[in-house]
Amino acid sequence: MTHDERLSTYAQHVQQFLDDFLSEKDCIGQEKIIKSMRYSALAGGKRLRPALMMEFCRISGKNPEIALPFAVALEMIHTYSLIHDDLPCMDNDDFRRGKPTNHKIFGEAMAVLAGDALLTEAFTLATTPQNLKNFSAEQIVKATNCLSKNAGVFGMIGGQVMDIESEHKKISYDELVTLQKYKTGALIESAAQIGCILGDADEKQLHAAKEYAKAIGLAFQIQDDILDIEGDAEIFGKPIGSDAEKEKSTFPSQIGLDKCKEKVKTLTQTAINAVKTGFDESSFLIWLAEQLAVRNK
Amino acid sequence: MTHDERLSTYAQHVQQFLDDFLSEKDCIGQEKIIKSMRYSALAGGKRLRPALMMEFCRISGKNPEIALPFAVALEMIHTYSLIHDDLPCMDNDDFRRGKPTNHKIFGEAMAVLAGDALLTEAFTLATTPQNLKNFSAEQIVKATNCLSKNAGVFGMIGGQVMDIESEHKKISYDELVTLQKYKTGALIESAAQIGCILGDADEKQLHAAKEYAKAIGLAFQIQDDILDIEGDAEIFGKPIGSDAEKEKSTFPSQIGLDKCKEKVKTLTQTAINAVKTGFDESSFLIWLAEQLAVRNK
Repeated sequence: MTHDERLSTYAQHVQQFLDDFLSEKDCIGQEKIIKSMRYSALAGGKRLRPALMMEFCRISGKNPEIALPFAVALEMIHTYSLIHDDLPCMDNDDFRRGKPTNHKIFGEAMAVLAGDALLTEAFTLATTPQNLKNFSAEQIVKATNCLSKNAGVFGMIGGQVMDIESEHKKISYDELVTLQKYKTGALIESAAQIGCILGDADEKQLHAAKEYAKAIGLAFQIQDDILDIEGDAEIFGKPIGSDAEKEKSTFPSQIGLDKCKEKVKTLTQTAINAVKTGFDESSFLIWLAEQLAVRNK
Repeated sequence: MTHDERLSTYAQHVQQFLDDFLSEKDCIGQEKIIKSMRYSALAGGKRLRPALMMEFCRISGKNPEIALPFAVALEMIHTYSLIHDDLPCMDNDDFRRGKPTNHKIFGEAMAVLAGDALLTEAFTLATTPQNLKNFSAEQIVKATNCLSKNAGVFGMIGGQVMDIESEHKKISYDELVTLQKYKTGALIESAAQIGCILGDADEKQLHAAKEYAKAIGLAFQIQDDILDIEGDAEIFGKPIGSDAEKEKSTFPSQIGLDKCKEKVKTLTQTAINAVKTGFDESSFLIWLAEQLAVRNK
């Protein structure tokens, strides 16, 4: 299997699982919210977080497919955060992944609830009795705790709060790094960590996975900021220049475009070195880090 | 200990636990969201759900205090649902428990995030490693799954969706019962169920607990609708007549005030009978059901 094929396979598994899990067939009045959840959750996206989790599970020596319920749970949390971020009272964005945002289609009330529901059902999935076939209850508790912590006040939500508080305000480069560490980094790190928990990785491997995820998480956000300046709106799936318009602090506004591009390269190398030290079979994750560094969408 | 004292003790434990858990002391930029979470979570309220959970744990034969992390998690989920329900795009309410609603104080963006955070951290609490001192990992997985399912699309959120869909529309009495079964009933039932899971109750007890919770859950909502007509705004903590103003389907609008009062009595008796069959020590829960039936706030 080529790396490209592996990435597609992971994404297909996630898509299929989401399609089955978010089903309208048992509804008695919940059809509209299921439609709204499906609209955002099945809209595609890179499925980066599930791929990381499944791959870390695989290279820790387990079948990557057993990680699917947790991988999908994490993707649902990522999706809910996008729906709520796009709300009029937050970033007020009209487009996401080239499609109208959730509240533009389903209205604000349903968008709030669809986000709430994706977040809630992520935990239903993480603790589903079926997971006891593949994991010990201790593993499930540990992985679920890792998921909620990284999504919470001292994880993703904390980063989102810092982001809101920093609008129209000058923040330092270090503050921006911290903000992104929480806002984007926390979920990416949790993908790697949970993959290791589910794959029964040892301490050294867990450490390597965290270092890898930390580095690609930051590189990912810097590349996002670069694309918001240099990208092609059509390919990127959202309008170019939106950060500048909102007077958001970005990496290019802090250190300039050239230094940003250098940073992406250095961080990618850091990630590659880290994963090599922890795992024998690291070629997919090396390739993935390199792909992310040159992505245009 | 009198029943009144027991209820106060449960509420005090919950208040103290919340006060410690939602702490600003480790914050590095999350102070504002913690303030917003505390504003709503520490605002009091009846703490009915935690009391139910802790009491069912106790009369199943365990120390009720071991249930505290789950009781607080459930209360945090209840609180998040109130914050999001009050938002301008939902019920657009300005007052709750006699105080301005969360978004009136902290703004809409922070209110959305505070709700998200309370929901997320509920699961951090449910899966905290400390719980492994008092429960098996299997119990934790089961209780956490019960929590998220009852809060989700086929629980509380599903009921909220039905509620929104039914505004300015004529629905039948049965539809209203179903709506409330999900919207209010699901979390109350989960309190009883989780109390039994944590207290290692047997199947017969679990069944009795569910029947009790189902009956008081519906009685609770009918009493709420009665108070929205006959209550004292000062004591009730929210404006009177708001259901009529929003043209909401309520139990009195469906079957009239007198039949509603009768229903509350019958359901209370059903609850009392149920709990008596399952548990030897049911006097507190009998008293509680009676109190709820005559409450004015």
